[in-house]
Amino acid sequence: MKTKSSQALLSVGGAWREWACPALLIQMRSSMRPAFNGGPERHTTDSTMTAPSNTYDVIVVGGGISGLSAAKLLKANGLNTVVLEARDRVGGRTFTVRNKETKWVDLGGAYVGPTQNRIFRLAEEYGIKTYKVNEQESLVHYVNGKSYPFKGSFPPMWNPFVLLDFNNLWRTMDDMGKEIPREAPWKAPHAEEWDKMSMRELFEKICWTSTVRQFATLFVNVNVTSEPHEVSALWFLWYVKQCGGTMRIFSTTNGGQERKFVGGSGQISECMARELGDRVKLQSPVYRIDQSGNMVVVETVDKQTYTAKYVIVATPPGLNLKMHFNPELPPLRNQLIHRVPMGSVIKCMVYYKENFWRKKGYCGSMVIEEEGAPISLTLDDTKPDGAVPAIMGFILARKCRKLSELTKEERLKRICDIYSRVLGTEEALHPVHYEEKNWCEEEYSGGCYTAYFPPGILTQYGKVLREPVGRLYFAGTETATEWSGYMEGAVQAGERAAREVMCVLGKIHQSQIWQTEPQCLEVPALPFVTTFWERNMPSVGGLLKFMGVSSFLSAATAAGMLAYKKGLLPLPRS
Amino acid sequence: MKTKSSQALLSVGGAWREWACPALLIQMRSSMRPAFNGGPERHTTDSTMTAPSNTYDVIVVGGGISGLSAAKLLKANGLNTVVLEARDRVGGRTFTVRNKETKWVDLGGAYVGPTQNRIFRLAEEYGIKTYKVNEQESLVHYVNGKSYPFKGSFPPMWNPFVLLDFNNLWRTMDDMGKEIPREAPWKAPHAEEWDKMSMRELFEKICWTSTVRQFATLFVNVNVTSEPHEVSALWFLWYVKQCGGTMRIFSTTNGGQERKFVGGSGQISECMARELGDRVKLQSPVYRIDQSGNMVVVETVDKQTYTAKYVIVATPPGLNLKMHFNPELPPLRNQLIHRVPMGSVIKCMVYYKENFWRKKGYCGSMVIEEEGAPISLTLDDTKPDGAVPAIMGFILARKCRKLSELTKEERLKRICDIYSRVLGTEEALHPVHYEEKNWCEEEYSGGCYTAYFPPGILTQYGKVLREPVGRLYFAGTETATEWSGYMEGAVQAGERAAREVMCVLGKIHQSQIWQTEPQCLEVPALPFVTTFWERNMPSVGGLLKFMGVSSFLSAATAAGMLAYKKGLLPLPRS
Repeated sequence: MKTKSSQALLSVGGAWREWACPALLIQMRSSMRPAFNGGPERHTTDSTMTAPSNTYDVIVVGGGISGLSAAKLLKANGLNTVVLEARDRVGGRTFTVRNKETKWVDLGGAYVGPTQNRIFRLAEEYGIKTYKVNEQESLVHYVNGKSYPFKGSFPPMWNPFVLLDFNNLWRTMDDMGKEIPREAPWKAPHAEEWDKMSMRELFEKICWTSTVRQFATLFVNVNVTSEPHEVSALWFLWYVKQCGGTMRIFSTTNGGQERKFVGGSGQISECMARELGDRVKLQSPVYRIDQSGNMVVVETVDKQTYTAKYVIVATPPGLNLKMHFNPELPPLRNQLIHRVPMGSVIKCMVYYKENFWRKKGYCGSMVIEEEGAPISLTLDDTKPDGAVPAIMGFILARKCRKLSELTKEERLKRICDIYSRVLGTEEALHPVHYEEKNWCEEEYSGGCYTAYFPPGILTQYGKVLREPVGRLYFAGTETATEWSGYMEGAVQAGERAAREVMCVLGKIHQSQIWQTEPQCLEVPALPFVTTFWERNMPSVGGLLKFMGVSSFLSAATAAGMLAYKKGLLPLPRS
Repeated sequence: MKTKSSQALLSVGGAWREWACPALLIQMRSSMRPAFNGGPERHTTDSTMTAPSNTYDVIVVGGGISGLSAAKLLKANGLNTVVLEARDRVGGRTFTVRNKETKWVDLGGAYVGPTQNRIFRLAEEYGIKTYKVNEQESLVHYVNGKSYPFKGSFPPMWNPFVLLDFNNLWRTMDDMGKEIPREAPWKAPHAEEWDKMSMRELFEKICWTSTVRQFATLFVNVNVTSEPHEVSALWFLWYVKQCGGTMRIFSTTNGGQERKFVGGSGQISECMARELGDRVKLQSPVYRIDQSGNMVVVETVDKQTYTAKYVIVATPPGLNLKMHFNPELPPLRNQLIHRVPMGSVIKCMVYYKENFWRKKGYCGSMVIEEEGAPISLTLDDTKPDGAVPAIMGFILARKCRKLSELTKEERLKRICDIYSRVLGTEEALHPVHYEEKNWCEEEYSGGCYTAYFPPGILTQYGKVLREPVGRLYFAGTETATEWSGYMEGAVQAGERAAREVMCVLGKIHQSQIWQTEPQCLEVPALPFVTTFWERNMPSVGGLLKFMGVSSFLSAATAAGMLAYKKGLLPLPRS
């Protein structure tokens, strides 16, 4: 499906290919057509670039950030590569839509922040700038039907018991995370024990107050778009750890949601695809991978056949199931791919005539705890220049499954309703535009943001997650060890898989496969400094124990004093 | 892949087709070739039976018992049907192998028992007889390194605390099951609460002793080839309930393992396939289902295209993922199929020269509790006439994943080793033959025996399990409401899906879709009678409470008596 304007664009073909593509150009181009289609023409052949008869060094399955960054690195190293993408666009779980109402909007992965240095490196290469998500004014915490403005990463807790409990929760999760090796969580000292537990079970052990337990549920919902009882404690603790801990993963400023890309995150994939030229084939879902001969043969639903020495599968692990393998996958991998479902989320953007929340002293970030509310977390999505006022909100996990059955209009109504209650103004009831994307309906994602591991799976199947199968190598953000589940992880995984193939082709040494990334100078990571009190405040349990012991000691002392005074104790007198 | 002899057999073609096929004939035929290939020639066309250009009333995806029984019923009602089977054989998760060492052996689903009336009806129609699994002599319970012979369904417990705990476990599970509607477990009064729990959590709540908790783990392992911490409590309780309760599901005599088919369970599918003739296409994995036009178009990996008014998908739900759908599946179904993994099992048959265990007074059933033992449950697999002495054993769940990585020889060695320890004789160390089947490696099953629901999935996604999607209807044992997970459930589901299609075609009324099955006269179901004590014995918790209360009352009484004697109580004297 190609629009007239994209046909026109393609006529400039070759000239675009080796360019870096600054965001500005993208914006110019995108303004020319209603729905962006960033991919190059399919089936154009350029004999200077691809060998005849669809034969390549490496076939990459999946044109998301991971697959494209694998292909980009392979191409840079002189390998002949093709990317087979199922959809009619690149980008996978990132998806930037352009239209007159929004200019551009990220309906998929959008947020980036400090320590995500690989994605910043790519963006910089293509001249794509970042901007800070607005957090100037107050955030709001809505709980028990009331709004509480606050500043910082987490809402403050005023009840002293709740405060101890809250502080202890984050400290405990981060401490447990320290035990878990990011590259092999199944080797953690308590791996088996923690993997048998769901996060719900762990929260029941850690948390003393229902206030904190409820907030902990929201924390899981927001970070992994699933429920605490659905996910393995080992897996979730690993997930938080490999993002840099509870503060880094949840924070806007200095955390995972600090920034967005000017012009949309989709540009990263679009620029890589443009660089790769006709090596990217759209609308080419792979349904068969045959490695029974000397070369791997890959067939697509559009009835093309591709041949290569190696294949990098850069899909979520569960989407390996879309392919019929010959020979069959080994038993553990064959079962793993049935055991790693994708989370559930609808990303909802409500557009307003005016940025009324900032005028009321709110930045647009809302943390909403109410079972009946569709949205659990919002962020301001106004453009960096103040244009196109908008609020981004997530419908998460259980709420996503429930609200999937409503119409788009009903969802918008409910969303505006809760925004008006949280922000305390009926201005929220009058949106001028609405965009949403339910990722659960996407056959070639299966859900968003990422795959989760239910209890018991990580210890039993985790080690085959990125273990090659013959000539197949595995990328995709799920196989990353830093910011897995994020765009950053996608790049790490794609480049690592590319280097695995380069290694087996004798182009690099094994020790070069895994590489660290220097810090992006423009987005430095500040350390999170914990206070003495945060480190040393007791948990509620600890406090009660202490109070129990000290009451006992006090009582014993009092009794001793009394006995002493009554002369009942044979103490030596001086 | 076709052997000479099967080619020869096919030359008698049409004459076979409309026959019922008594087991005797099957045995004759199977003796003619080393590996059975029961399917008819592919691509033979019989214009009297199939419309031209691959157009049908109904396409059935999957040639297991469920798909074949759907197609059989559709054909009997005059509908033009084709079955597309991925493998080079029919039968799915049933798989009967014939060779000179074993005569025949069921490497997949094999056991049947009272209340499984649909599968008995099919077997009877084809003249396939059943025989009772040997349970004449003692069973053995191996625990803490010692063997304890016993009779009955469950090993007896001698410690009185353990006995109370054990009795309470089964009673509680069956009582909870009574609350769960078999056709809609997500509507149970405590559905949400129980679905958030894993069976491990439930066992921790119910069981007081580690002895019982360990046995409960084995109970889950044996029944659903997965771990207690992997499965939802709601789902597992439903599963046991829809099999008729803890006694029915676990028993050999009067339970799910009472009988096997003489000649192997594979005959059921083979006979149905023979009846369906060239309507069954082998080696035809479906990779695409397009219902964007007036007719549904289905494409197979062998590059055939089939067209029909309706499609019945008779695969495990997770294997829907092998197909690319146009339009995409609705969001809940799209996510469901990533959330229902198949269990993990290797079925192992060890053959011996002599049936030495019966001579020692053992029937061949072993319940083995030892972490290091590969096998958790065995049954005698000697032929009904006493020939081909053999022991069937299951490597289950965590053990299956661990031992998948050994060689076949290593597995056999470890199995014989534990058999010799449990049966107390080194005769077990000298097998004459070994057959095994690791179902985890099967791309087109994904595992065995059946799909399980991890915590949280049944309440959120269960209701779409057999909800039609456009012209697609869903069969497969996972969609059954009686003996789901078994051959019986496969028949129930297949016939129900066939009647759904017949209903939408106006051939039957909606009220006729779900049908009950009259009891098989030759395999009557006896009720399980619980004793007064089983119904009324307290749990350990109950007993302790009682003892607590009664100690208090005794102490109070004693104190009262004392006070009374000392004249401290102003009681009226007579």
